[in-house]
Amino acid sequence: LADCYAALVHWPVFNKNRSVIASALTTIDLHDLARAARTYGLAGFYVLTPLADQKRLAVDMIAHWQSGPGSQYNTTRSDAVSLVRLADDLVDLRRILTEQYGLSPLVVGTSAQNGAGRIGYQDMAGRLAGDRPVVVALGTSWGLADDAEKQCDLMLAPIEGPTEYNHLSVRSAAAVIFDRLFGRTKRGAL
Amino acid sequence: LADCYAALVHWPVFNKNRSVIASALTTIDLHDLARAARTYGLAGFYVLTPLADQKRLAVDMIAHWQSGPGSQYNTTRSDAVSLVRLADDLVDLRRILTEQYGLSPLVVGTSAQNGAGRIGYQDMAGRLAGDRPVVVALGTSWGLADDAEKQCDLMLAPIEGPTEYNHLSVRSAAAVIFDRLFGRTKRGAL
Repeated sequence: LADCYAALVHWPVFNKNRSVIASALTTIDLHDLARAARTYGLAGFYVLTPLADQKRLAVDMIAHWQSGPGSQYNTTRSDAVSLVRLADDLVDLRRILTEQYGLSPLVVGTSAQNGAGRIGYQDMAGRLAGDRPVVVALGTSWGLADDAEKQCDLMLAPIEGPTEYNHLSVRSAAAVIFDRLFGRTKRGAL
Repeated sequence: LADCYAALVHWPVFNKNRSVIASALTTIDLHDLARAARTYGLAGFYVLTPLADQKRLAVDMIAHWQSGPGSQYNTTRSDAVSLVRLADDLVDLRRILTEQYGLSPLVVGTSAQNGAGRIGYQDMAGRLAGDRPVVVALGTSWGLADDAEKQCDLMLAPIEGPTEYNHLSVRSAAAVIFDRLFGRTKRGAL
């Protein structure tokens, strides 16, 4: 299986008025996604923001769970948070992983919207073999802006339940996406 | 398909020392689970706490998204939060639904721990037909205490990824459980 990474994109993303923004980090996204990434065997979890103050905030959050009060309070969370890394954006992340692996990663974008050429979960799960690292890019706020989507080699189909409502939190969406892609590697079919 | 409900149990649950407690409500659990319940077509989402001050807090949170500032800020969240109901605990919820349907609900508990007789997701999905309402009970904090588990007619198998780490947040676990149980009703196999 390829080394797979989650990337939580804070820039460039849409706000609710479809303006392009850098969204704020939230501590709950950070540890919920870290725990899900750890559960599903991901190689790392990149938090993407180019803003220096937001990076400092991320470093503080990580330190809280790794060596601060949180490390005493909850050791399983410290284990998960050890997966967290920082980078500016998907361009920066592609550069980092290309350097590390000698291969440009396959970057898979996610969206609550449908569109042309979206890849299904079973197809995508079938493409996780090989040496090329895989990045699953998750947009915060109202989702990946066009410049972030342009960095994606593939776009996953939106998560659909039996209703037309498609407003999962990024925390819920990430967990479902990881489960669909990585949840059956040990168990075969559910 | 049966009417299915999510129940977020705040009492009785374990804390990290396995003492039985009533845990505190969090606003993020409330709207993350409401959005997931709405996405997956659930009939309602019960927040279970016997504490009067916590019920008042829940009512305030609901009002914020339904008629307060949040209703202007985010209409899709107000739509989801309309599913939220309050009850004391699983005993109270069973009484409410029995009165409403004339049938005692099938209460399905969830746990990060394995145990005897856990039902798998495919088997459980096959039992969602008929008139008897179904409740999926999710424990906050360190999970359902024994008295809560005793109220469950069945226990679902824990969510397992390809690793031994099993510390998903209740927000992530709920989304994955709903996806596994209700995510394929429209689409057939993934």
